[in-house]
Amino acid sequence: MFLRLMRPVLCSWKAGGSRWRLACLRGSKTVPAMEKKLLLVDVDAGVDDAAALMIALAAPNVEILGITCCFGNTEVENVCKNVLRVLKKCHHLQIPVYQGASSPLLNTMKNDYFYGTDGLGDVPDAEAPGLDRVQHEHAVAAMIRIISERPNQVTLVATGPLTNLALAVKMDPKFPKKIKNMSIMGGNMYSRGNIDICAEFNFAADPEAAYIVLNEYTCPTFITTWEFACLHAVPWEFYEKCTSQDSEKARFLKEIYAVTTEIQKRPIPKLRALYRKPGFVSCDSIAMAIAVDQNVVTESIFCPVSVELTGSHTRGMLVLDMDDALKKENKVSIAKELDMEKFKSLLLGALK
Amino acid sequence: MFLRLMRPVLCSWKAGGSRWRLACLRGSKTVPAMEKKLLLVDVDAGVDDAAALMIALAAPNVEILGITCCFGNTEVENVCKNVLRVLKKCHHLQIPVYQGASSPLLNTMKNDYFYGTDGLGDVPDAEAPGLDRVQHEHAVAAMIRIISERPNQVTLVATGPLTNLALAVKMDPKFPKKIKNMSIMGGNMYSRGNIDICAEFNFAADPEAAYIVLNEYTCPTFITTWEFACLHAVPWEFYEKCTSQDSEKARFLKEIYAVTTEIQKRPIPKLRALYRKPGFVSCDSIAMAIAVDQNVVTESIFCPVSVELTGSHTRGMLVLDMDDALKKENKVSIAKELDMEKFKSLLLGALK
Amino acid sequence: MFLRLMRPVLCSWKAGGSRWRLACLRGSKTVPAMEKKLLLVDVDAGVDDAAALMIALAAPNVEILGITCCFGNTEVENVCKNVLRVLKKCHHLQIPVYQGASSPLLNTMKNDYFYGTDGLGDVPDAEAPGLDRVQHEHAVAAMIRIISERPNQVTLVATGPLTNLALAVKMDPKFPKKIKNMSIMGGNMYSRGNIDICAEFNFAADPEAAYIVLNEYTCPTFITTWEFACLHAVPWEFYEKCTSQDSEKARFLKEIYAVTTEIQKRPIPKLRALYRKPGFVSCDSIAMAIAVDQNVVTESIFCPVSVELTGSHTRGMLVLDMDDALKKENKVSIAKELDMEKFKSLLLGALK
Amino acid sequence: MFLRLMRPVLCSWKAGGSRWRLACLRGSKTVPAMEKKLLLVDVDAGVDDAAALMIALAAPNVEILGITCCFGNTEVENVCKNVLRVLKKCHHLQIPVYQGASSPLLNTMKNDYFYGTDGLGDVPDAEAPGLDRVQHEHAVAAMIRIISERPNQVTLVATGPLTNLALAVKMDPKFPKKIKNMSIMGGNMYSRGNIDICAEFNFAADPEAAYIVLNEYTCPTFITTWEFACLHAVPWEFYEKCTSQDSEKARFLKEIYAVTTEIQKRPIPKLRALYRKPGFVSCDSIAMAIAVDQNVVTESIFCPVSVELTGSHTRGMLVLDMDDALKKENKVSIAKELDMEKFKSLLLGALK
Repeated sequence: MFLRLMRPVLCSWKAGGSRWRLACLRGSKTVPAMEKKLLLVDVDAGVDDAAALMIALAAPNVEILGITCCFGNTEVENVCKNVLRVLKKCHHLQIPVYQGASSPLLNTMKNDYFYGTDGLGDVPDAEAPGLDRVQHEHAVAAMIRIISERPNQVTLVATGPLTNLALAVKMDPKFPKKIKNMSIMGGNMYSRGNIDICAEFNFAADPEAAYIVLNEYTCPTFITTWEFACLHAVPWEFYEKCTSQDSEKARFLKEIYAVTTEIQKRPIPKLRALYRKPGFVSCDSIAMAIAVDQNVVTESIFCPVSVELTGSHTRGMLVLDMDDALKKENKVSIAKELDMEKFKSLLLGALK
Repeated sequence: MFLRLMRPVLCSWKAGGSRWRLACLRGSKTVPAMEKKLLLVDVDAGVDDAAALMIALAAPNVEILGITCCFGNTEVENVCKNVLRVLKKCHHLQIPVYQGASSPLLNTMKNDYFYGTDGLGDVPDAEAPGLDRVQHEHAVAAMIRIISERPNQVTLVATGPLTNLALAVKMDPKFPKKIKNMSIMGGNMYSRGNIDICAEFNFAADPEAAYIVLNEYTCPTFITTWEFACLHAVPWEFYEKCTSQDSEKARFLKEIYAVTTEIQKRPIPKLRALYRKPGFVSCDSIAMAIAVDQNVVTESIFCPVSVELTGSHTRGMLVLDMDDALKKENKVSIAKELDMEKFKSLLLGALK
Repeated sequence: MFLRLMRPVLCSWKAGGSRWRLACLRGSKTVPAMEKKLLLVDVDAGVDDAAALMIALAAPNVEILGITCCFGNTEVENVCKNVLRVLKKCHHLQIPVYQGASSPLLNTMKNDYFYGTDGLGDVPDAEAPGLDRVQHEHAVAAMIRIISERPNQVTLVATGPLTNLALAVKMDPKFPKKIKNMSIMGGNMYSRGNIDICAEFNFAADPEAAYIVLNEYTCPTFITTWEFACLHAVPWEFYEKCTSQDSEKARFLKEIYAVTTEIQKRPIPKLRALYRKPGFVSCDSIAMAIAVDQNVVTESIFCPVSVELTGSHTRGMLVLDMDDALKKENKVSIAKELDMEKFKSLLLGALK
Repeated sequence: MFLRLMRPVLCSWKAGGSRWRLACLRGSKTVPAMEKKLLLVDVDAGVDDAAALMIALAAPNVEILGITCCFGNTEVENVCKNVLRVLKKCHHLQIPVYQGASSPLLNTMKNDYFYGTDGLGDVPDAEAPGLDRVQHEHAVAAMIRIISERPNQVTLVATGPLTNLALAVKMDPKFPKKIKNMSIMGGNMYSRGNIDICAEFNFAADPEAAYIVLNEYTCPTFITTWEFACLHAVPWEFYEKCTSQDSEKARFLKEIYAVTTEIQKRPIPKLRALYRKPGFVSCDSIAMAIAVDQNVVTESIFCPVSVELTGSHTRGMLVLDMDDALKKENKVSIAKELDMEKFKSLLLGALK
């Protein structure tokens, strides 16, 4: 019964034989495929996501099967362009890029232009690839297809609002069971927010999506929260070392991060200093590092979670159900301690 | 730009060339296609939806392009089976049936078993068609495809929770602009509820979906509310006349409605009598009648609306913004007066 | 135990022996006290409350024991002044006036300056009594004392936000059991609002207070809703007849109502006309008329109610629990039909 | 104007001349009154409050002007009895005790019987004082009176739900300006809860009261949160030292704390250990210690705060507005570091 109904449903998501074959070929080129970490990455790039992508692209044991795009740091069209630009710089334009959600489920859009209006530091590149390089398949359809083609083999990394992931599970409720594991950047663990008093941007941008994903994605899940990232800033000295390497990638990152770096280097307000170490903060890079090498996190809080939807001050807040009040079966791992040396080495390697 | 990006996206929703050709052929058989009312119907059948479908199937000037199924009166698999059973009884099994959402967006499911556990009066038919007759394409994909193939020609009728419609606009935000118009059964106009104190079942079953649809579907929209349906019950005498006709359809409807009829004939509680006329109430049939012949409604309230999401008692309530406080551009028509003779004649004709 | 604890608590509310004696004397002057309707009136005057007070002051069988003031149509100090001005015009300055709440419980003040910035039509009177005529006792203390002195004999009339009443029951939970009955102007019955989309001003001004009162005041309760008042407007012709009487009171009311009358005479917007009859609307006067002569209402909805606190569009909405979903013991009477001739005669008499 | 209106209002709260004189005499006995710390304490005793009271009663430089009681750890009548019992044990029965709120503002009572059904460890004392020793004056009236008699001289300590304090400011909005400063036990700083997922008991018991107090009490305010108390548990060894002193008070505390001690000594669940040090936790004692000697706290977070009212998981959560999003003028001090030696010495002294 399950097969009869559900396989056909999945078939309808495939965009046609030729694209599928392409995917298979690409798979077969990387020998032996099974030994590589297979990633599917959902981003709202954003310079933060750019850095994260560069970590994965440089990791020798990792293959990115596709990159799905979501609104967030900028409009979804810009996100697509930004991803293509990163891929070109890293000589990986063969990785398929898919356009997804342009607005949150309940349509009270909050783009965060923290990284410039184009999301990539406002340093345009006349030779950047155009949107014609974006795949025709919808990001949500691609997400379901790619993961269904390799059940329990793919790690899903999500570094933007979770709208695409939420739509995927609503379109195909069986889909999360086929994910090997998942690394999310989003939410908070001590109720400190960045976009709202008690809410982090990715979750606040689409609280319902975050709620859906944390309720219905039962695969092993790792969460990199806002405070965790702030508490694990990379010393500026090391950041300079990374970005002053003599490589195209180092120059590119330094350039797109210029404005952000300047902002991050400003004196940290006294209260924010309670949970913000001085240094370079790239939240998405930590989430990606976890996907690339789980051991980068040395201690986690493993507990059920939810997302507050109706609070006046707390809408979008990640809720840690430490005393098991919600009686949920599913638990997630919230990163608590980072192996900073491992993380720094991934960062350094990414820009070589 | 729009074409470059959006056409390909739509292409990915088509299930393949052969299915598309089939649709074209079916279209060409009905000469001349342009003169027929083209309907796409989203149901949670339910005997109420069954009666509604029978009205459309019997209407001489109407062609149903497809029926998409949503959870609601029963599980979505049962809804598919029930629709197929109705189609078989009406000799219209050629109409494609699609399976859609099995749960509301935020996954706090409320199936309403008012019409029996199978949603169709619990009078099983050993010769009913099986789920293998359900199309492989996902209901949401089909909805987008069918309407995109005939821009501004198709009337969308929705008689269940609005989950499929909500997913469709989140997957393709341009989709609602291609709908000719829409008739929805759902919500309330005076804050009377049936499933919650202030909320009607279809909206309460997925308030976020109702919110999304009423915010993002900018096509002309007609709403049949719970109180409107209750105020326009068909006299029992006339219901007997309809269902005692010597036809397979009349016998079928009488049979599946038997339990419901018994319940509806019970004395109406004093307070509910304030907005409930004695007689046969089929909310979905009125919404369908409006799609078949808009003139069945003789007076409407034309105003902006929203759906309450956060109330303790009012979650899912339809909100009529009569004083234009929300400054919304879009307005909907909320049925206020019914041409009862026209409606009765549609009902009688449906069972001939 | 009850006496031991509670009598002393009440004693502490009295402002001293002399004031109590005064109240007793005043009571004994009106022979026989028992045959008079005893009213305690809580107002946010407001011209609407002024008209209501004039009805009670003119009613031969009614004695007003005190008037407690609440913010609402204007600041509470203005409300006190306005009440004193009305009392002076009606030669009833002996009735004690008490100052109460200056803000709603949760302090998101909404004064409604619909009746002018002074709440009384902005036609100042140089000879109006000053605030020195206001009693020293707090309105809430007075309310508890006055009603406790005459258990089950006093009708409480409330025509403003219910903040004073809410505070009274929180200060003395046994207090509502001593009220004979209560007539409230506030809330809505079909979800039509005046200050918010779905909320009437008095309830929206302090939703928590309305919630507390409707939950904890278990005395017989009559509610005059916004729509009920709108549906029972007095024809302008009759209003002219009332206010053109050759009396000080008629001239006074006409004067303070001048601006309001002008506004009310404007063409009624099409959608509001659905529940607004043309004519003079004085919501508070109807609530007062019910207190003076219960028979002025000929049909009521008798059901449990609550107040929505958390809705985005419905905060402050009166919720009618017609299907008894809340399983509340207490029910209230929501006015549905008015004996217009009786009401008109009270209005005419008030201005003689 | 202020004086004319407000002084009389205050007068009405006084219970009469004799009681006021008594207070003055009591004041004059303690020479020189001005050099003593004057405390007014609002409790929901509770063994936790009992320990706190004993700290204040033993402090040489402190005078308690009155103790007002609120529901919380048990019914308000029990709270009164428990306070009297503590006062008798400490030979301070002359301190007046007042009965206040028996339920939260919105009347969804949550008594926490963590400390036994009687709130005092269920070790009844046949010779405990009776409720006849409770003052006749209402706690809220007494609170306003006592503080108004000594403007800017009295420290208010609140170790239970904040219902009495909320009522006081709604009855007399000028009252908080006369408070010297205030120490509250309640709320949380990292969103960890004890009674709800994200809410601490005192705030969750009456979130609206906490909201009102934190918005309208503009006096200098110190908050002892749940996590702060848990992070500053007193080692068991030291607790034994305190309670094994050869004194009536030590034996009394040991006895009423027996059950609680047993519970607190159980192994701490792994996740709670993230913010809970092993040892004796008395939240209220820390709040009292701050009132007795402000220097017991060596580091605070000084920022605007609010209380979440509408969250599904976060209702009652203390919200720290670290980035000044709410643009509130008022800020509070949230304890962050404790001088443990000072606190231990206060605790030891309390039981001598």
